[in-house]
Amino acid sequence: MRVLLVGAGGVGAAAVGIAARRDFYERFVVADRDLARAQAAVSGHEPKGFVAAELDASSAPAVTALCREHGITHVLNAVDPRFVMPIFDGAHAAGADYLDMAMSLSRPHAEQPYSLTGVKLGDEQFAAAGRWLDEGRLALVGMGVEPGLSDVFARYAADHLFSRIDEIGIRDGGNLVVAGYDFAPSFSVWTTIEECLNPPVIWEADRGWFTTEPLSEPEVFDFPGGIGEVECVHVEHEEVLLIPRWVPARRVTFKYGLGKEFIDVLKTLRKLGLDRTAPVKVGGVSVSPRDVVAACLPDPAALGHRMTGSTCAGTLVTGADRDGDPLTVYLYHVVDNEWSMREYGSQAVVWQTAVNPVIALELLAAGVWQGAGVLGPEAFDAVPFLDKLVEYGSPWQLREQ
Amino acid sequence: MRVLLVGAGGVGAAAVGIAARRDFYERFVVADRDLARAQAAVSGHEPKGFVAAELDASSAPAVTALCREHGITHVLNAVDPRFVMPIFDGAHAAGADYLDMAMSLSRPHAEQPYSLTGVKLGDEQFAAAGRWLDEGRLALVGMGVEPGLSDVFARYAADHLFSRIDEIGIRDGGNLVVAGYDFAPSFSVWTTIEECLNPPVIWEADRGWFTTEPLSEPEVFDFPGGIGEVECVHVEHEEVLLIPRWVPARRVTFKYGLGKEFIDVLKTLRKLGLDRTAPVKVGGVSVSPRDVVAACLPDPAALGHRMTGSTCAGTLVTGADRDGDPLTVYLYHVVDNEWSMREYGSQAVVWQTAVNPVIALELLAAGVWQGAGVLGPEAFDAVPFLDKLVEYGSPWQLREQ
Repeated sequence: MRVLLVGAGGVGAAAVGIAARRDFYERFVVADRDLARAQAAVSGHEPKGFVAAELDASSAPAVTALCREHGITHVLNAVDPRFVMPIFDGAHAAGADYLDMAMSLSRPHAEQPYSLTGVKLGDEQFAAAGRWLDEGRLALVGMGVEPGLSDVFARYAADHLFSRIDEIGIRDGGNLVVAGYDFAPSFSVWTTIEECLNPPVIWEADRGWFTTEPLSEPEVFDFPGGIGEVECVHVEHEEVLLIPRWVPARRVTFKYGLGKEFIDVLKTLRKLGLDRTAPVKVGGVSVSPRDVVAACLPDPAALGHRMTGSTCAGTLVTGADRDGDPLTVYLYHVVDNEWSMREYGSQAVVWQTAVNPVIALELLAAGVWQGAGVLGPEAFDAVPFLDKLVEYGSPWQLREQ
Repeated sequence: MRVLLVGAGGVGAAAVGIAARRDFYERFVVADRDLARAQAAVSGHEPKGFVAAELDASSAPAVTALCREHGITHVLNAVDPRFVMPIFDGAHAAGADYLDMAMSLSRPHAEQPYSLTGVKLGDEQFAAAGRWLDEGRLALVGMGVEPGLSDVFARYAADHLFSRIDEIGIRDGGNLVVAGYDFAPSFSVWTTIEECLNPPVIWEADRGWFTTEPLSEPEVFDFPGGIGEVECVHVEHEEVLLIPRWVPARRVTFKYGLGKEFIDVLKTLRKLGLDRTAPVKVGGVSVSPRDVVAACLPDPAALGHRMTGSTCAGTLVTGADRDGDPLTVYLYHVVDNEWSMREYGSQAVVWQTAVNPVIALELLAAGVWQGAGVLGPEAFDAVPFLDKLVEYGSPWQLREQ
């Protein structure tokens, strides 16, 4: 396996640190728009086949050329979702398989954005599924932690715990605190704004996909791992688009434990138009307001040493067990920031995101996971994946409610 | 009198509309960085001596040159307070008198910003007072509505209503609503952020000037003119720096009726660092986050036709009356947006700001107000000013509490 990792930001750098302890690849090219950042990420790992490269991820031909230069077999996309399509297309043109951790972006319905879907997350990628399938190539989409591990949990629940699933509801929350800042998100604020202010999507078996109001239906969820109660709201997320394609359920939702302060911040950004990505003219220049918001906040990947607490990703499943009795189970994965910083020098949220595509690559390299077309993580057997998670030193858990 | 008005924004354009109905000047040059905006402001008023010009207000030599070109006797500064010093210095170098509606900017105390003053509002201007006085020239600073009319009210109270003043507290509030926007400030958001997030300054006779926490000591004040109760908080404002220099009082404060929603927005902007003026790098360009916030919001001067409600500026004075009995009086001025739009085509807040320097220019032209040095509005007799306000069709009022 010859990997091209696109993006040496927080998640990309963490993936390098994790992959560097494994042996499933011959070559691991780390590309970034900023060559120095790629070089810093591979530094010390050159003997294991790591190489840094410069790449404009917005250019599919540039992705293709870099794949060809290094004989790449698998492209792992670790940049923000604006760049999904050029990397996806660039990998395809080079004959490489493809993995990402977020899918192509949605566009709201023009007239009824808060009740009907427009262009959905991943639609552009699924539109190309036939081409990938015909050529026997694999695009494994949404293979981070959420989407990713959360989808694996859904598949595990369907295969091993339930005879009937009423609802699969992803619940994500944490109690991470960054010392020394009034406000410091623990994940890319660009992506957080994107997913939190877009119309959240819900799937129901008798209705299909539909949308609702951003930040709606607040619910307090009690997270394990010492995290406790956090206010969760509906958020647009890939699991809702992926799970119903492979896992039978009556309803699929995603609720994000933003907490009250973050919810208020997002509402204010929207009110002021600062969530917008379209450029505005400011003096003599044009800038995207959302990029300015991100530029004003500290880089979450660089805050690990100031952070305390844990992050939890998990899948809440309700339905009937193998005997037909009512069952509610929360399958989850907790990462403590102190552990991830000590073990890998990565903060908890980016480490938790990065470990999953590395495991997926290892399963693909070994032929344990095989497939063609555009597939989600729930299209594969969950057990070998979950076993690897334990083997990587970061076990998953299960709580019966 | 030959006037140079610097700035054809909301307040500048309103000042043109008001001055165009008066006859105290021979020439009225309206200068703006954007010549088209200046031309639009003077359009139709050319026969009365109005002339448009292009000017970079950040350049004192450019101000001086434009003054000389037109034989200017009085410069009226109607741009945001970042440009006070170049216009003030440029007018001085040209031998012209000077008026503004906001004073040179403050800088917080380096170590104890929320208890001690650093560089105060107007300090840079008062440092030049000797030069202006020696040359017999006048810089009349803070001559809008607040500061401006509010200072005139303080002087009137001291001269005609009180034998002893315990506190002079400016109270500003309104009930303006802009239809069709989630959030649309009725005044320059750049200036509002500046004055609301700087440490508010307070003056006490036995302590001098000191500062406190931004947005502190919330108080509900019942405004007249149908406005009603609005939450007011301490805000940095020029009156607190001006009034104690000429009017004897034990304490001087300023509280702004921001309302809860605006206070929350300001707190969030501060938390995210979006109130900052120093440029941040965003992609390949550098921008000031506060300028981006302003660029994302609609231009308040252009919203008059969508606005309803009134704005109230006033001065609350407590102490003892001429007989030594306790007295509390609120002297105030209300402008109804419907009236100002119908009469002048200007929204209420900019009209209320603009009328005051026009009156001051008329009093100076007639020699009713005379003075030299750097002086505030309270250095002059209040009665002729307040009489002019009535004559201009916008009477002031008085409420005994």
